Amino acid sequence: MKSGLYIVATPIGNLKDITGRAVETLKAATVVACEDTRVTKKLFSLLGLPINKPFISLHNFNEEEKSQEIIDKIKAGNLIALVSDAGSPLISDPGYKLVKKCREQEVYVTTIPGVSALVSALQLSGFPANRFMFAGFIPNKDKARKDLFEELKNIPAT
Amino acid sequence: MKSGLYIVATPIGNLKDITGRAVETLKAATVVACEDTRVTKKLFSLLGLPINKPFISLHNFNEEEKSQEIIDKIKAGNLIALVSDAGSPLISDPGYKLVKKCREQEVYVTTIPGVSALVSALQLSGFPANRFMFAGFIPNKDKARKDLFEELKNIPAT
Repeated sequence: MKSGLYIVATPIGNLKDITGRAVETLKAATVVACEDTRVTKKLFSLLGLPINKPFISLHNFNEEEKSQEIIDKIKAGNLIALVSDAGSPLISDPGYKLVKKCREQEVYVTTIPGVSALVSALQLSGFPANRFMFAGFIPNKDKARKDLFEELKNIPAT
Repeated sequence: MKSGLYIVATPIGNLKDITGRAVETLKAATVVACEDTRVTKKLFSLLGLPINKPFISLHNFNEEEKSQEIIDKIKAGNLIALVSDAGSPLISDPGYKLVKKCREQEVYVTTIPGVSALVSALQLSGFPANRFMFAGFIPNKDKARKDLFEELKNIPAT
């Protein structure tokens, strides 16, 4: 596998919900970028994968500064696996700024696709899924939550 | 595995983009509901899975009538695997009416999640994916396409 950023989906509820290609990529990665290194190291152990390589924490609060560090590692020949705590990275998870920067600097980016909570929820909802909107996390505060629902109620989609 | 409707995601571009649980479920299924039986039988062959069981075609034009037939089979003890030609069923693919009917008749429905083109496209786009709208297939006709884009341009999301 060539050097680059590999966006790898990991299991959500069932350890068997991972593809063969994802396991191969996590094994081949020379560096792992993840949200919480403890969570991801635990996943590696459960999957029987080696953890004797650098694990870098990338989250909403350090993404701006960490992204260039990661890109420099790719330029130096590393194969970086980007994972979130669970599911498909970037969908309501960090990573978008890193991908954008990779694009700008013409660094190889690919996805090793897999499970996503969003897709599962839609499938099981009993609602039409040929048109829908994903609005992200719902705010905890009453006012912000009410404002969001007011805004969304006029959108013609699931 | 108990009888019910199992919504199984299948590979899109790479045959290795399927989870272990999906392969097990396709193997255990007593009936397969799919869009195009030729496409799905070919996939089974490529994956080394047995095709000596009924394959039922379920598409946008017969979903209403076929759904009850499938539910009756589940009630009779069958394990039905619902797949689309590729990717995650129900996302711009048939199946929603069947799931809705299962819910109404309290028939067991679950998802065996996997890859989805939508998620991959979002991850690689370089756009924020914490809020987005999926609008389905874009019409071929100029007028219909223009109307859709007019409608969408005011929606505050990717």
